[in-house]
Amino acid sequence: MGYKKNMESIKINVMQKLLKANDAIADEIRNSLKNKGIFFINLMSSPGSGKTTLIEETVKKLGKKIKVIEGDIQTTLDAERLQKLGIQAFQINTGPFGGDCHLEAAWIKTAIAELGTEGMDILFVENIGNLVCPAEFDVGAHLNVLLISVSEGEDKPLKYPLAFQVSQVCVITKTDLLPLKRFSLETLRQNIQKVNPACTIIEVSAHEGAGLERWIEILQNKTGI
Amino acid sequence: MGYKKNMESIKINVMQKLLKANDAIADEIRNSLKNKGIFFINLMSSPGSGKTTLIEETVKKLGKKIKVIEGDIQTTLDAERLQKLGIQAFQINTGPFGGDCHLEAAWIKTAIAELGTEGMDILFVENIGNLVCPAEFDVGAHLNVLLISVSEGEDKPLKYPLAFQVSQVCVITKTDLLPLKRFSLETLRQNIQKVNPACTIIEVSAHEGAGLERWIEILQNKTGI
Repeated sequence: MGYKKNMESIKINVMQKLLKANDAIADEIRNSLKNKGIFFINLMSSPGSGKTTLIEETVKKLGKKIKVIEGDIQTTLDAERLQKLGIQAFQINTGPFGGDCHLEAAWIKTAIAELGTEGMDILFVENIGNLVCPAEFDVGAHLNVLLISVSEGEDKPLKYPLAFQVSQVCVITKTDLLPLKRFSLETLRQNIQKVNPACTIIEVSAHEGAGLERWIEILQNKTGI
Repeated sequence: MGYKKNMESIKINVMQKLLKANDAIADEIRNSLKNKGIFFINLMSSPGSGKTTLIEETVKKLGKKIKVIEGDIQTTLDAERLQKLGIQAFQINTGPFGGDCHLEAAWIKTAIAELGTEGMDILFVENIGNLVCPAEFDVGAHLNVLLISVSEGEDKPLKYPLAFQVSQVCVITKTDLLPLKRFSLETLRQNIQKVNPACTIIEVSAHEGAGLERWIEILQNKTGI
């Protein structure tokens, strides 16, 4: 147990140094994109909450000056979905690097260099589908957006508070499923407000189109585009 | 960058040592429970796929000789739900330890000591809701069961293969949502088989009761109880 404890303390020490190095790169990305008039949005959620669909709908409404960095452990499925809309999407696969459960600022910096910043006014990062780890790593975004589908349950903000606390906007997705769910939107809203009273909360059904105007309105307010 | 790279290699080295220490404790748990005639099942899934509900339904059908170790970052909500059924549930909160995204064998060992092994024939661990990290840590179970809800999309086995590969049984949940979803059960089944051809796949709607007999049948076959 002494060995295990010693290893744990080395792990924490190394992690703190990695987080510090990550934060410095994140700040550099944030400032550099701001100077170029590019607004950077980081989307986080559980697997399958609707991140790619929300980006697809956003591109359809706001046009082609959007680029996307896709984070996945395996596959380029999401980047392919987005390229069909005629926009540039760059896929980061963490699989070859131990299947990392989050994206780090250094990888975003490399991906931005590959994508190029010309002809872009909004950059989306679709983080790894995971309600835990991505919240711990600043990727340099100007806005963190958390998605949660009504299928996931009202208790998730209480059980995974950090992801809700680091986000300025929370999008409740798949509201078309509400007729079939024992689910209280009111309880979910209260639970989000308990852990992050300042969070802007909106509801969308991307497939039915409900709530998308409000999402675009918030984006235009935040980005000034 | 040299500093970052050096830190990364220290991180990997420390992680390998931690994983090795974890595996030794996991084997010890597996053997010790087997000798006592206790069958140990590890449930993994994204947040909100229905792990607690599946345990609740299992307890209702198989009786009170089940104990549960609940993994959550914050709250004791799930343990409280299970204690209402008159069974013993022990909550591990990883929040105070940096919000860890998975459970490790050492914590399970401590939790088993707290719960006691008398009067137990099945032990469930409900892992942290996360499709990435828990798959990397052996907790000493005799059976790994992965849950995926039809709301999460057919592509998840391809995007998060490890969780599907370390599991012997895959339970597709919330099939009562199928009428409202553009979702193909056939494609999900094919994708699971692509990454793990040996996996037993079943479909349940815990709320409607569909498929639960098959789940209990599999449990009884595996556990011999």
